[in-house]
Amino acid sequence: MKNNTPKSPSDVSKTSRRRFLQTGVAVGGVLGACTPSTLQDPARDLGEAPSTYGQRSPFEKSSRIVQASSSGGSRRSPGGTPEAGLSRTPLQDSQGILTPSSLHFERHHAGAPEIDPDRHRLLIHGLVERPLIFTMDELRQLPSVSRILFVECSGNSQSEWSNPGSTVQRSHGTASCSQWTGVELSLLLTEVGIRPEGKWIVAEGADACKMHRSLPLEKAMKDMIVAYGQNGEAVRPGQGYPLRLVIPGWEGNTHIKWLRRIKVVDQPYMGREETSKYTDLLPDGTARQFTFAMEAKSVITYPSGGHRLPAPGRYEITGLAWSGRGLIDRVEISIDEGQSWQEAELQEPRLPICFTRFRFPWEWKGQPVTLQSRCTDETGYLQPNREELIKIRGLRTFYHFNGIKVWQVQADGSVQSVPA
Amino acid sequence: MKNNTPKSPSDVSKTSRRRFLQTGVAVGGVLGACTPSTLQDPARDLGEAPSTYGQRSPFEKSSRIVQASSSGGSRRSPGGTPEAGLSRTPLQDSQGILTPSSLHFERHHAGAPEIDPDRHRLLIHGLVERPLIFTMDELRQLPSVSRILFVECSGNSQSEWSNPGSTVQRSHGTASCSQWTGVELSLLLTEVGIRPEGKWIVAEGADACKMHRSLPLEKAMKDMIVAYGQNGEAVRPGQGYPLRLVIPGWEGNTHIKWLRRIKVVDQPYMGREETSKYTDLLPDGTARQFTFAMEAKSVITYPSGGHRLPAPGRYEITGLAWSGRGLIDRVEISIDEGQSWQEAELQEPRLPICFTRFRFPWEWKGQPVTLQSRCTDETGYLQPNREELIKIRGLRTFYHFNGIKVWQVQADGSVQSVPA
Repeated sequence: MKNNTPKSPSDVSKTSRRRFLQTGVAVGGVLGACTPSTLQDPARDLGEAPSTYGQRSPFEKSSRIVQASSSGGSRRSPGGTPEAGLSRTPLQDSQGILTPSSLHFERHHAGAPEIDPDRHRLLIHGLVERPLIFTMDELRQLPSVSRILFVECSGNSQSEWSNPGSTVQRSHGTASCSQWTGVELSLLLTEVGIRPEGKWIVAEGADACKMHRSLPLEKAMKDMIVAYGQNGEAVRPGQGYPLRLVIPGWEGNTHIKWLRRIKVVDQPYMGREETSKYTDLLPDGTARQFTFAMEAKSVITYPSGGHRLPAPGRYEITGLAWSGRGLIDRVEISIDEGQSWQEAELQEPRLPICFTRFRFPWEWKGQPVTLQSRCTDETGYLQPNREELIKIRGLRTFYHFNGIKVWQVQADGSVQSVPA
Repeated sequence: MKNNTPKSPSDVSKTSRRRFLQTGVAVGGVLGACTPSTLQDPARDLGEAPSTYGQRSPFEKSSRIVQASSSGGSRRSPGGTPEAGLSRTPLQDSQGILTPSSLHFERHHAGAPEIDPDRHRLLIHGLVERPLIFTMDELRQLPSVSRILFVECSGNSQSEWSNPGSTVQRSHGTASCSQWTGVELSLLLTEVGIRPEGKWIVAEGADACKMHRSLPLEKAMKDMIVAYGQNGEAVRPGQGYPLRLVIPGWEGNTHIKWLRRIKVVDQPYMGREETSKYTDLLPDGTARQFTFAMEAKSVITYPSGGHRLPAPGRYEITGLAWSGRGLIDRVEISIDEGQSWQEAELQEPRLPICFTRFRFPWEWKGQPVTLQSRCTDETGYLQPNREELIKIRGLRTFYHFNGIKVWQVQADGSVQSVPA
């Protein structure tokens, strides 16, 4: 490339700035920052050779926020119990529909055990004809399925009931989306043979709290996956290595990690996680129980709390929508405090029970403005606003918040969470 | 869970073995290995707390095979030049359609430079109205797209021309599939304004060999992506961090990594990578040049070379198919040396210019047998066998092999590569 020498940065600057303003694409400080002292020339030296298992660039800092559990830890662990804590996915940095496994949210009740897969077993027993124990090699050899599915903690967005999270990581960060691979549980249950009295299963993990949930057999036979793979490799330790029960569309707590046992039973076992926890206490004092399916929900990830728009101009509002009941059919954006709604573009692929990425072109004129999104799933269910949700559910629960999240862009371009 | 004590492993063993044989599902050694000494109880102790950025289990060993370049390195580097080498994806372990970024194949010509994204710039100049320089922040702020796309080195499967690779990692491991996110190049080219004489672009990387390729403007305006994201986070260093030109369906060499410059020109520059390299010398002594699109191809990943079937019984044959020209419409399997072909199931999602996972139920009776797959893409193009391909292309090239790959299952269950 010998001719057509590029203009010097300052020459380029003069023309380019005008063009960006003409077209209205907001690109801040385009060329002013491009002085020789800020440039580097990585082409001077040979770089790194290929490696057996790569890592991200040391310049990348996007991270999960880790939070220890505070409940019950007051005397023995004044700072809470880290092993019973959680970590939140940085959705403000999210791209497309996939969450990197390293950034998938975690919610542990007794920490992630280290498990040697060669010594791990899955026992299926109870009201069955032939109880069976499977090794990992045996499971991996059976016919498999792969699906790209979101997993969402039923406590995701609990902040929004009363004290809205300042960033989308804090408000919605216990939802993530991966490709999960494994054996359909229906295949294993057919192998063991369900007795007529068998109506539920109890799935149990190998962690120190022996995490377990009662689940209806009907769903088990429909689409549960005994997953050993996540995003093309083994399930990560924080996600249940070597085996996790993945339940499309159901609250994350039911996706039992470190899965070691499935017992076929005649009725739910009414364990801790389905009585004192993971139920919704309603205004009349009764509790919603076995509220498995996660309802349709959407949230704007850019611009969102903590972002700052460098200058007035054109932007693309983007975010994620998902529903435990199937496809997202529509996402709408309001920039006038919910008075009117305009349809956003849904990016392909649009898959059932999977994050769907939406995009909406928008021009910011420099004034304070609120941004919010709402979605409709294939059942026709429309995501409610907070007020509508509270009218029905009250304020005694902290699970299953799927209301609209509102961001406010300030005159200085900074973005904050505001009450819905 | 207090009652229904499971049978002891040896009791379970008696019934379960029979059942597996009855149903014909091949599961080796089901319960014999399940003695107390091999079991562990990870539930005795608290596990690991959540973390900011997770890693895979230390028990997982699936790795890329790294190979140094041998060409031209004979005197100075007797072992070859590692920085100009490659690494191959372990497709024998692949699941679904996604390749983990840590296992995505690499092909470097001068190693992967370490680049500070705050100091990186993309210059677009040449036959344009307004040359522009973009910072990473500016690019990330523009409207973006995400697509799940395969990338395949045009030298992938070069072994198959003459000396078939012993494993699918060695024969097909320079193909991988990721979600790529970035700005459509057409948007940037519209910003700079192409002059009427502009017909091609030259894209250049920031590595020590200043890797560059000439590419027709028409494709640039159609669907090229200036990508900063891979699988939901930043592009990995080995894939071009912080910026890679992703060109849906075209040979991997054109997907310029560490992208720093795009020059609009009137004709191809005829650089090294499009004259002495990445061309196909035909039997008549002429060369095919600018053979960008990767033709339809498929390969069985399980069972494949190096695997061993533990016993006769039912298996699922599975593998991957892809085409640079769009969707995979059909994959067929032959278990009788290509005399007859049966249709495999294609797993959803089936996306254009993306790995498609196929599955085929099969019973192995214990005899030696050959397994092969062929695919048809949406243009109606049928993947050829090796003989058909050589008839047209001859044996003087080592690029663009997309012929059928044949595996042979031996009587002892071991799987080997055999000539097609």
